[in-house]
Amino acid sequence: MSKERALRFSSVLEGIKTYEAGKPIELVVREFGIDPKDIIKLASNENPNGCSKKVIEAVQKIVPNMALYPDDSMLKLKNALAKRFGVQNSNIIIGAGSDQVIEFLIHAKASQNSTVLMNKITFAMYEIYAKHVGAKVVKTDSTHHDLAQFSSLYKEHKPSVIFICTPNNPTGDVLTKNEIYNFLDGIDSDTLVVIDGAYLEYASYKDSTTHIDPADLIERYKNVIYLGTFSKAYGLGGMRVGYGIADETIISQLYKLRPPFNITTLSLEAASVALEDEEFVQDSLKQNFEQMRRYEDFAKEMSLDIIKSYTNFVTILFDDSKSSTHIADELLKRGMIVRNLASYSLNAIRVTVGKPEQNSRFFELLKEQL
Amino acid sequence: MSKERALRFSSVLEGIKTYEAGKPIELVVREFGIDPKDIIKLASNENPNGCSKKVIEAVQKIVPNMALYPDDSMLKLKNALAKRFGVQNSNIIIGAGSDQVIEFLIHAKASQNSTVLMNKITFAMYEIYAKHVGAKVVKTDSTHHDLAQFSSLYKEHKPSVIFICTPNNPTGDVLTKNEIYNFLDGIDSDTLVVIDGAYLEYASYKDSTTHIDPADLIERYKNVIYLGTFSKAYGLGGMRVGYGIADETIISQLYKLRPPFNITTLSLEAASVALEDEEFVQDSLKQNFEQMRRYEDFAKEMSLDIIKSYTNFVTILFDDSKSSTHIADELLKRGMIVRNLASYSLNAIRVTVGKPEQNSRFFELLKEQL
Repeated sequence: MSKERALRFSSVLEGIKTYEAGKPIELVVREFGIDPKDIIKLASNENPNGCSKKVIEAVQKIVPNMALYPDDSMLKLKNALAKRFGVQNSNIIIGAGSDQVIEFLIHAKASQNSTVLMNKITFAMYEIYAKHVGAKVVKTDSTHHDLAQFSSLYKEHKPSVIFICTPNNPTGDVLTKNEIYNFLDGIDSDTLVVIDGAYLEYASYKDSTTHIDPADLIERYKNVIYLGTFSKAYGLGGMRVGYGIADETIISQLYKLRPPFNITTLSLEAASVALEDEEFVQDSLKQNFEQMRRYEDFAKEMSLDIIKSYTNFVTILFDDSKSSTHIADELLKRGMIVRNLASYSLNAIRVTVGKPEQNSRFFELLKEQL
Repeated sequence: MSKERALRFSSVLEGIKTYEAGKPIELVVREFGIDPKDIIKLASNENPNGCSKKVIEAVQKIVPNMALYPDDSMLKLKNALAKRFGVQNSNIIIGAGSDQVIEFLIHAKASQNSTVLMNKITFAMYEIYAKHVGAKVVKTDSTHHDLAQFSSLYKEHKPSVIFICTPNNPTGDVLTKNEIYNFLDGIDSDTLVVIDGAYLEYASYKDSTTHIDPADLIERYKNVIYLGTFSKAYGLGGMRVGYGIADETIISQLYKLRPPFNITTLSLEAASVALEDEEFVQDSLKQNFEQMRRYEDFAKEMSLDIIKSYTNFVTILFDDSKSSTHIADELLKRGMIVRNLASYSLNAIRVTVGKPEQNSRFFELLKEQL
């Protein structure tokens, strides 16, 4: 038979640009002759305190169990989350990062015939997963979440899924609970609204009016799913554990798309134990905002425009006389890795709030570029 | 607005039965008053030797790095796999278990308008993922892979994807390399053929004519992808790492569907180091077939019908006077967990070849039921 024709793939793939991971950025920095120990990475919003010592001890103990498949009912972790949030196990789905829950809900609710609504600048995975199913993506035109605009685009496009990221990544701004509830009151029950609270522990700590209680949220709104993660405040970015909390009519549908064993044996243990050490989280939050204050003071001193942040990162906007790409490159050559937001159409960099000495070094290096 | 209507979901979900994980089976067994230390699980084809000590040591060292996102280029693991198999990094995609590579390829190549061809009895995830995209599933009608029947169904249905599982799970039988190559010669270049070698390390050890060399395979066939896993011979079932090897025209398309950070930081290290300890794997294979011999002798002694196995498990078929469901239940009450194959329409159980004392206990308990 003919071997001439090549394999043809799904037409939706034509609209997807491959996420090019490239070489680890640490390797790139080393090419500038920088000692690995002198490289500072403030690019991925990892917890600078690492994770809880209790988690490290618990995981160390079960490392020899790596041959054993995880408990696919995830009973221990679900029990711990249910207790924490005052919901039932049937209201919870666990994903390999909250990303995976986004993947489930897009596949369950969106298709080539539907529209997905999101903020102009927001977490990149919303659009990437929407493209996986060929859905049309509609975005607002403001950097901050403008809910009036969301409402008007909702009425115009009747999207099947709406993403609200609070606080927003990569900008750091936040909505209040009242703003979100008022918005949700105007949304029809067949539109799934995602409240992505990946950084909400930070916002709630700083300003209680931004706090969303998942139990209350899903009790009021049967068409809403709350997303949380262990990657940020809980310091487990490398372990890939996130969760969705919603009415069980939603969870049961998403569960149909969950592959068995989607969380590793060690990750399940890490996340379960992490929920037992709230002190670690509170310490991290406290230190984060102490250090954030230094960023605010630095910005004032240098007349830099920053977005008031309710997260563990700061977005610094540059005026037209500067280029965020140039600045990020110059920092890189000096071993300082930050996130250039040019790909989000912002002349800005996003900097993770690090340890005190890391932040001092950042101020020193950025000053040289101003 | 009306809150009366419930959320409607994608129609493909209607055809999917939720995978009900239920309570961990260990908890069920404990309900029979059995001490956890007396429970023997020979149900998931985990490596009874655990994993390499070198892997345990390496992972222990980086447990404190759980806060750090994994290297998303997976450079270390890809380099190790490329070296092992004599292929380029661009020929490799890593999945959270080879399951996830199956998910990528189904989404890339199948849809509601296409057909997926597989054996009557084979790895359950092929059909589950096919249903995720609403594809039509066509199966042969024989327990063993009958490639003549595959060829004839291929001509009739022109499937977009064909799954060949060698050795097959959950039956343990295998095809030779020549049989597979002859079959592939008759397949058109627009059909993607998956050669799932999850257990192929076992088969290759037992009979070299079953060995498939991924480099040679993908050099000859541009429409074929080879799947491998770290879950079985490498003893890392809990860490969720598998891989696909194919021509880079295939890999580049699958990469479009790969979520970033799909492998945990600890799993990447575990798999990379596992490839450095071939002695552990060879010891596991040797012990497996020494113990397999005991299963063959036991079957002969008890006049039991078993499928000759090229894997780390044995499938025992019962005649009509016995029920696999009854036998599996009785074993469960005695703390012995095996896999009942009734859900595969087989009056059979699948038993993982365990440690010598675990196998002795299995023989003792099964004897009581015969």
